Parts: sequence; C-alpha cells; structure tokens
Amino acid sequence: MSNLDKEIRPPAKVVEWIGDAKKGFLRLLDQTKLPTDTSFVDCRDAQALWQAMRRLVIRGAPAIGVAAGYGMVLAAQWLPDNSDFLTGAEAAAEYLESARPTAVNLSWAARRVLRRLQRVITDDFDQYRQAMLEEARAIHAEDEAMCLAIGRHAADLVAQCAGILTHCNAGALATAGIGTATAGMYVAHARGHRFTVYCDETRPLLQGSRLTAWELMQGGIAAVVITDNMAAQVMREGRVQMVITGADRIAANGDTANKIGTYGLAMLAAGHKIPFYVAAPSSTFDLTIKTGAEIPIEQRAAEEITEGFGRRTAPMNVKTYSPAFDVTPAELITGIITDRGIISPVNAGTVAKIVKE
Amino acid sequence: MSNLDKEIRPPAKVVEWIGDAKKGFLRLLDQTKLPTDTSFVDCRDAQALWQAMRRLVIRGAPAIGVAAGYGMVLAAQWLPDNSDFLTGAEAAAEYLESARPTAVNLSWAARRVLRRLQRVITDDFDQYRQAMLEEARAIHAEDEAMCLAIGRHAADLVAQCAGILTHCNAGALATAGIGTATAGMYVAHARGHRFTVYCDETRPLLQGSRLTAWELMQGGIAAVVITDNMAAQVMREGRVQMVITGADRIAANGDTANKIGTYGLAMLAAGHKIPFYVAAPSSTFDLTIKTGAEIPIEQRAAEEITEGFGRRTAPMNVKTYSPAFDVTPAELITGIITDRGIISPVNAGTVAKIVKE
Repeated sequence: MSNLDKEIRPPAKVVEWIGDAKKGFLRLLDQTKLPTDTSFVDCRDAQALWQAMRRLVIRGAPAIGVAAGYGMVLAAQWLPDNSDFLTGAEAAAEYLESARPTAVNLSWAARRVLRRLQRVITDDFDQYRQAMLEEARAIHAEDEAMCLAIGRHAADLVAQCAGILTHCNAGALATAGIGTATAGMYVAHARGHRFTVYCDETRPLLQGSRLTAWELMQGGIAAVVITDNMAAQVMREGRVQMVITGADRIAANGDTANKIGTYGLAMLAAGHKIPFYVAAPSSTFDLTIKTGAEIPIEQRAAEEITEGFGRRTAPMNVKTYSPAFDVTPAELITGIITDRGIISPVNAGTVAKIVKE
Repeated sequence: MSNLDKEIRPPAKVVEWIGDAKKGFLRLLDQTKLPTDTSFVDCRDAQALWQAMRRLVIRGAPAIGVAAGYGMVLAAQWLPDNSDFLTGAEAAAEYLESARPTAVNLSWAARRVLRRLQRVITDDFDQYRQAMLEEARAIHAEDEAMCLAIGRHAADLVAQCAGILTHCNAGALATAGIGTATAGMYVAHARGHRFTVYCDETRPLLQGSRLTAWELMQGGIAAVVITDNMAAQVMREGRVQMVITGADRIAANGDTANKIGTYGLAMLAAGHKIPFYVAAPSSTFDLTIKTGAEIPIEQRAAEEITEGFGRRTAPMNVKTYSPAFDVTPAELITGIITDRGIISPVNAGTVAKIVKE
C-alpha cells in the first residue's frame, strides 16, 4: 500500500463509535436527510439503532453490518451487572436482526460479536463490553480494508477513463469505507486522476442522485446526475469509457443480481463496446447458487413508483410492475472487481479461482 | 373503414370548439392537472390560449396545431368591425406563434387559417370568422383522420401482442384524435383485442405515468406503469412483443428523433429480438435532413432532474446532463407506421416511397 492510499478517507463518516465501551455511543450519518441536510443520529441504546436501521438512516449491507457490531456493545451497556450476560447478549442479537431480517450482514456481524463474547471468561462485565467493542472495531476495520482493496484493484481501470457511469449507490454511504463501486474512483482521485462520474438517478428511490452524487461531491469528484433513460445517449456520445456498479448477490457462474436497471445498462454498454464492471467484496458471492436463474426477484410497493417523492405522478389505482432488482448474465460483465483481485473473464472457473481460495 | 372504426373516439376531449364562430369558445383539457384531476380551461380570447399553450395545458405538436387554428377564430372575434381584418389576423398569427416558437404545427395551422381568410372576399366580418372556423374545423378533422389512419395500419400488429411497451406520451392527449403511438392500441381495443401496455414513466417530466397511463385507463386499456430502468427486465421476462413510440422529427433515411430514452429502448428491443416501431404522421418527416446526425440535441433545465417531484432529490449545485431527446438510427427501427402506410424496412428508399408520393 502506498502512503497515499493510507490517507484515503471516506468522504463522510457513515458510522462512528464515539467514546469507550462502557459509556460510548454510535453516531450515524442520517441518510434520510441527504442530499439537502448533513445531520447525524446518535444511538445510545439498541432500540435507537433498531429504529435507525428500520428508517434507513443507515443502509447498505456492509454499513449495516458494521453498525450492528457496535449495536451489540450498546445493548451490553444496558445489561444489569446481576444478569446472565451471555443470554442478554443473545437476545440483543436477535432483536437487532429483526430490524432488517433479510440483511445477511446484520446477522453475521451480531453473531460474530456474540462468538467473541463466548470466548471471554471473566466476572467483570466491563471486560465483556470491552471485548465486544474490540470485535465491532475489527469488523469496522475489515470493512474499510475490504473497500480499499477493491479500490486499489479498480483504480488503474478508473484512471484510464475520462468518464464513468454508475447506477444506484454502491458507495461509501453503503459501507464503513470508500464503498465498492466507488472505491476505485476515490483511490484514483487521491492519486491525482481527474474524471467525471455520470450518476444514474436510479428510480424509484433515487439513490444515485440523492446519495452517490452527494458523496462524490463531498469527495471532490466531478459528479453529473442523469435520469436513467439518458444512459444510452451518454454512452453514444462517448462520454464514458467504463460502467461500474455494485452487486447484491453473485452466483457461482458470475451472474449478478443488482438494483433494477443494471441489466439494461450492461446490455447498452455491450452495444457501445464499453467495458462493464461489477465491484463487490468476495462475501457477495453465493456459491450455493449456480446461476442467476435461481435468484427470485422481489416486487416493490407500487407507491415507490406512483408517489415517489410526496407527489402523485400516476393515475389513482393504476397498476405497476416494480422488480427490485435484475440479474445481469455473466457474459455481459467484463470483470468483477473484488477485494481479492479482478475476475475477468467472468465464468464459473474464474469465479471459483478467486472466491474459493 | 369499418363501422366499428368510425365509432372509435379519443378517450378524452383534448381540444373542443363550443358554439359558433361569433360567440363560441375553445375548451381545453387541463393536462397540467393530470393524472389526479380532470378539469378544463375555457379560452375566450387569444391571450387565454397563448397562456394555456405556454403553461402546457395543451401540448403535443398535433394538438397544439388544432388549438392554434381555433385560436385564430378567438382572435378574430375581438377584431373591431372598423379595423383592417386581414392585418389584425396576421398579427394574431404572429402572437399565437410566440407562445411556442419551436412548435412547427402551431405556425403551420395559424398560417393555414390565414391563407383561407385571404381567399374570402366579403365586407361582412362574420363571414370571415365563419370561414376561419371552417378551416380550423378542417384541421381538427384532418388530425382525427390522420390518427385513425395510423391506428388502422398499426392495429393488426398490436392485435398480435399480449404486451406492448411505450415511452413518453405520443397519445390521444398529444393530438385531437386517438394519438399516434397509441392509435393502434385504441383501434385494436375497439375491435375486441385485449392486451397490456407497459408505460415507461419517462423521466424527467413523467409524461408516461402522468399522461399515457391516464389516457389508456380512460380508454379501458390495461396500463402498467414502470420506471424507465425496468424496461429491459420487462422485455427479458417476455412481457412485451412490441415497442411503439412516437417521433419528434424523422430524417430522410428514417433516423428518428424522439423523447430521451427512445434510443436506449430501441437497442434493448433489438437485443431481445422484439420489434421496435415508430408511429408518426407523414408530416413528421423532414426530408431536408439526410440523417439523424444533422439534428441538434437541446439540453433541458437542470431543475427537471433535480427537483422533478416537487422536492429536491439531488445535491444543491450538482451538475446535470439532460438531453431533451435522442436519435434512434433507422437500422434499429423495425417499421415506421404512418397515416399513409407502414415503412418497413426503414431506409431512404422506403421512406421516399411513402412520404414523397
């Protein structure tokens, strides 16, 4: 790692533990207030964090995991000294998991803190709390390192581009570090490269305009917001030399589930001979799934389309169709940039080589 | 024309002249209130129509043309009997044109009513006004007939589909008849065919969700609203067997300028082997333009993207890129459905055969 890379900081403090294990608290950037207000929510007990995760004050699988690790410490602060500490901590993990039941990272992080606890033998509850905070900090540091590793692998590709197109927010705001799809941008920028990032606004929830454009601007990177249907024209005009998106889940053959619109972008990129990259930690691969065909596609609520931002923009009682994500087939993906290196070309063999090792 | 086709009425009265030439007035459906309210704006002088065109109470090139024809009658009602009638009418045409200077149909219709006037020799100003109303009604009737002709050519294609995808609003609301892209839908529906129309919401101005879905529902046709970035997934799932859009301007070789997003849709349709059709009156062809490369692409205001839903959805001072339309190359267009027949395949030769005759 160069000295320069060590100095790369996320453009915003998404999740931060302030203070010690006994009296400290968790400060979250309030992402529901972006992009117009930068404010923070301080969580001093597990209930406050539960609410914050539920309200999407914090979102993005890696960021939620990091917050959940600290959430275990918050819960432990309130366990009375005469209680069964381990039982109380187990109940706290279950409680936190219920905030976002489908968020695998949340459960994973809470359980990891719990396992650490099970290895500590002490009568001093503060020693328990200290061990939990250490584990939560380790999860946090690993997430930062994961982002930086992706960023270092992606930076050389980014540095060759005058323009890059991204979709949704697989950015610093979704992690405790410099993001996944955005990581290479922050590293290349820190190394002195200058480029423009076209941010699809990403209907229905507008994560691209609300979040990605905001964090890139915070990081000093030139961001340009476009509506989703402008991507093809941006490509045709030669404005972008690369597309990078994140991933929700990647099958063993490299088929990638991600925010709705990603598949269409990949087709358009192929049609314009523009490389299409996915950036994701190796933990996003689910090798129990052979191909993307096995991934069920959930439907979102109609109101996200018809009343997206407080105003009714479609007739009352109109039908909608609203898949939450789509699956981009591996053959449309130039490469998958992971913390362990770049998988390219993308197929079951090359995926296994990076992910199984 | 079958008896059935004669009975096909537009799903809403977009523009209607009520009364005689001397005292009548123009009633416009207020499209700024859709899709939540159905209300009308009555114009009793040219100033009221000028404002209505400016505010987009009425929009769509053919509909604006029809309204402008009637607008000349409104202006003539206010010309005093001791004035130079022809000079007054000429001034009225210029005034109306200034409401939407780039709307070719507006100028064309106003000038056509003026030419009719120049052929009338009378001292009775009411005879002038009567002649103007007759010409305005003729423009109106021709627009209805144009839509119906497109619809009859398109209906057999529509009837073969379980699902159709359309973009923006090239519908009844943009004409005085049953629309252009929608015309085949209304005719096929009247003939008893049942199908679903997926309406791209069409950011930034949401004409698809606000207008197209509304008018199809009024007409009893099953409409489903999707965000623009869902189109690829809808195609992939086999939900649509045809894409139909309108056109703003078609070059001599068939390259078609239309609402931003059309080009991307055409690429996605080609990738899924789904036929992509453009529906437009023969007046939309501009044979002075050889190819789409000659069509300049205007930029829209940033606020349409950043404050489109009445709420700020992008960071303050963020850059945007907002092309108003794009150009779909002829080779991506399966056919152009005109009032004179279907051009397919699309090239300079086949276009000339239909348009020049």
